[in-house]
Amino acid sequence: MNYETIAQQVLKRIFIELEASGRHVHVTGQQALALFGHPLTPKRPLSQPGQYLANERVTVIGPKGEFQNVAVLGPERPEGQVELSMTDARTLGISAPVRLSGDIQDTPGATLRGEQGEVTLLHGVIVAKRHIHMTPEDAKVMGVSDKQVVRLQTYTARPLVFDDVVVRVSPKFETYVHLDYDEANACGFQAGDLGRILQ
Amino acid sequence: MNYETIAQQVLKRIFIELEASGRHVHVTGQQALALFGHPLTPKRPLSQPGQYLANERVTVIGPKGEFQNVAVLGPERPEGQVELSMTDARTLGISAPVRLSGDIQDTPGATLRGEQGEVTLLHGVIVAKRHIHMTPEDAKVMGVSDKQVVRLQTYTARPLVFDDVVVRVSPKFETYVHLDYDEANACGFQAGDLGRILQ
Repeated sequence: MNYETIAQQVLKRIFIELEASGRHVHVTGQQALALFGHPLTPKRPLSQPGQYLANERVTVIGPKGEFQNVAVLGPERPEGQVELSMTDARTLGISAPVRLSGDIQDTPGATLRGEQGEVTLLHGVIVAKRHIHMTPEDAKVMGVSDKQVVRLQTYTARPLVFDDVVVRVSPKFETYVHLDYDEANACGFQAGDLGRILQ
Repeated sequence: MNYETIAQQVLKRIFIELEASGRHVHVTGQQALALFGHPLTPKRPLSQPGQYLANERVTVIGPKGEFQNVAVLGPERPEGQVELSMTDARTLGISAPVRLSGDIQDTPGATLRGEQGEVTLLHGVIVAKRHIHMTPEDAKVMGVSDKQVVRLQTYTARPLVFDDVVVRVSPKFETYVHLDYDEANACGFQAGDLGRILQ
């Protein structure tokens, strides 16, 4: 190992790369058929293993507005879900709560429109709660465990410390911080920026 | 003084009320005449003494989009200025830097359209740098001075600590933290929420 490799490994024990998630939708297999006439097809992989951006796009419709050309992420899930920023939710006129992905009980709904049809979700619209995906190896090195809530310093153009950041540990993950675009803009995020857990 | 009054005075030495500033425009007297055919007229006062929301509204036009019905704040200023969130700036296609209000050297421009005409600003489009307006009395109590950069803990639905918050002290001010809507949404701000300077 050369110095550069060693330096990178040391830095990876301290810093975590930030990612900003734009508004996006998850659908079930049946919803994909109703919206597009066929299952989702992968366009490009995302940072989390097995997850992908689909070629298919939808319009998300709320009482006050709509967003066209919204990303659909695959693979299909057991329940449909729409992840927005608070700014987006206000534009659509939907009072979406801040939740971890998948935690959609008692959340409001929205209508999705695809090339082949419309699907109305009775619930599933959330503002994604900021979180860190982490491998078990990185969790061990950083001294954190699944579901632990930590504070995260951002090394960004408008630096800040996010309180209440949930760590999710799984061998299925790669280690990344996920922010929504309100949070990304608030800290002046640019691609490649790093954060650090404060103990 | 009753207990409630005393409690309030003690709390005011510790906490500062947060305010979120939406996108808005400042204009010169000449620009107001060109846009509206008359000087600005006050609709309602803002938290900072002498500042007001005008009855007049403008459309702000950038290379990629426009916002209609944008607030104009009075009184008129020596230079025109457009204050956006990063989200807004992206929508308009303007690469606006993060600056304190009034610091518009080498910033991009935009076109304003009013009822009576259009004005093109050659520069003046900024993302407002977060800041605290503070009275000299509160600055003394809180142990900070003009232009000091502090860290601010928010007591909000999505709590966080903003680094790099500039304190502006003047007898013309009332004491408030000013955030833009990206920052307000990132911390889950609701009207009346408080912050505290971390020393």
